Amino acid sequence: MCAIGAAPNNLLKTQFPTTDPDETIGKIIDFFKSYPHLKQLAAIGIASFGPLDLDKRSPTYGYITTTPKNSWSNINIVQMIRSRLNVPVAIDTDVNGAALGEQVWGAARGLDTFIYLTAGTGIGGGGIVNGGLIHGLLHPEMGHICIPHDRQKDPYKGCCPYHGDCLEGLASGKAMELRWGQPPERLPFDHPAWELEADYLAMALSNFIYTTSPQRIIMGGGLMKNPGLMPAVRYKIVQYLNGYVRSAAITKDIDRYIVSPALGDLAGVVGALELAKRIGQET
Amino acid sequence: MCAIGAAPNNLLKTQFPTTDPDETIGKIIDFFKSYPHLKQLAAIGIASFGPLDLDKRSPTYGYITTTPKNSWSNINIVQMIRSRLNVPVAIDTDVNGAALGEQVWGAARGLDTFIYLTAGTGIGGGGIVNGGLIHGLLHPEMGHICIPHDRQKDPYKGCCPYHGDCLEGLASGKAMELRWGQPPERLPFDHPAWELEADYLAMALSNFIYTTSPQRIIMGGGLMKNPGLMPAVRYKIVQYLNGYVRSAAITKDIDRYIVSPALGDLAGVVGALELAKRIGQET
Repeated sequence: MCAIGAAPNNLLKTQFPTTDPDETIGKIIDFFKSYPHLKQLAAIGIASFGPLDLDKRSPTYGYITTTPKNSWSNINIVQMIRSRLNVPVAIDTDVNGAALGEQVWGAARGLDTFIYLTAGTGIGGGGIVNGGLIHGLLHPEMGHICIPHDRQKDPYKGCCPYHGDCLEGLASGKAMELRWGQPPERLPFDHPAWELEADYLAMALSNFIYTTSPQRIIMGGGLMKNPGLMPAVRYKIVQYLNGYVRSAAITKDIDRYIVSPALGDLAGVVGALELAKRIGQET
Repeated sequence: MCAIGAAPNNLLKTQFPTTDPDETIGKIIDFFKSYPHLKQLAAIGIASFGPLDLDKRSPTYGYITTTPKNSWSNINIVQMIRSRLNVPVAIDTDVNGAALGEQVWGAARGLDTFIYLTAGTGIGGGGIVNGGLIHGLLHPEMGHICIPHDRQKDPYKGCCPYHGDCLEGLASGKAMELRWGQPPERLPFDHPAWELEADYLAMALSNFIYTTSPQRIIMGGGLMKNPGLMPAVRYKIVQYLNGYVRSAAITKDIDRYIVSPALGDLAGVVGALELAKRIGQET
């Protein structure tokens, strides 16, 4: 998804599938170059799938690194775009981008510590702690935490090429499809798949709560379009925490604690806009 | 442990067991009141076991809340100390305190994002992200994350009164004692208890790495005094991450990535000193 603008209420947008790097980046460049006011383009922000090298001192800064999407590994996406558009380019993960979008214009306004999780084909998480995007050594890879896996209840072995039955390996859309033999959007709302899914997501959220103590958790991604999933996750998380975290936000107001992105599917591209704005102001 | 001073190299210290609140706080007050230069005491910092209410807008700010140590629940420790010493009092968790001590004077100097984990009778974690202590909604309770528990390999059901087989329920010193029938300090270094312990701790650390992307992890607490445990945790964590996190800090330099506290058992009290310094400067 590509967009041009200064705020989410007035964006010129386009959208096309991610294929191989040359074709995809070619289409990105074409979109921006066709903009009639190209000279007004001040900066580009990218919110990309990862893992990414975000260490500015690294020789591979701005690269997509160990992604399982093979033709995309070791692609210097920042340089490929900067060299052809000649503006400053900022990059972060898709989920950190979405978190930033939600903080500036969405469901996390006024918060300094929160998590953004997406559950779709894959699972990813990003967030803001003490007002800043989580970076540290690299960037979060919340989809790859390990969680309890009861093989009697769920014999599916998991599909993560790195970890087998990590969170993404058990609870991603891809795992659901492989476990049940059909894509999640075709599984009826009352299929037992969804209760298992809510279980895994609630375990993951309880771990994120115990680790970073977020003021809110935003859950986006294709799987969350099943209207029963969010309420089930909320119910189960209160069960898992079992009264240990004594905060009214959780014990009395869980519907406002675990929420959908206010920007919907635009959270990522709006976050990229904010990344662009910040690098434009720096330079 | 109580200390008076301005820096860790010159502290007047004392230590006594934590019994009930009245007796323990009585001894704390006696220690400070017996200081010959009491008038120079500018502020008190407390790094306490929790959970604590650290929300300054809350009516129970400064309280120990849902602790399983029964006589300590709903104790207003800040007020009990402030009212008798008449100086500003700051409070944070013992592990956030230890993290702060290590950042200012120890193994985390120069870092802005890291974790401090203690594995002793209980398990607790705190840390700093983007330069500030992790607070958000409350404070981290990293000992209570859920991790995989293979009941065939380890039939012990876990001892956490809230969660059964969470990290603390499976891997705390208390869990080791209940599982093996003797306290961990009496289990020989080659007892299988230690490999299981390294497994659980490495799973937990990999989750913390995927969630907050720390630049370093500091591991203190009584269990880490077994000299074989730290190397085993380092070895297993590299196995669990399985090449997914492509950082030389992990793949080539794990001995400097997972480390002991430079301040040893003083990390917490030195962090409390820093908390005191900061509140003294504020007021």
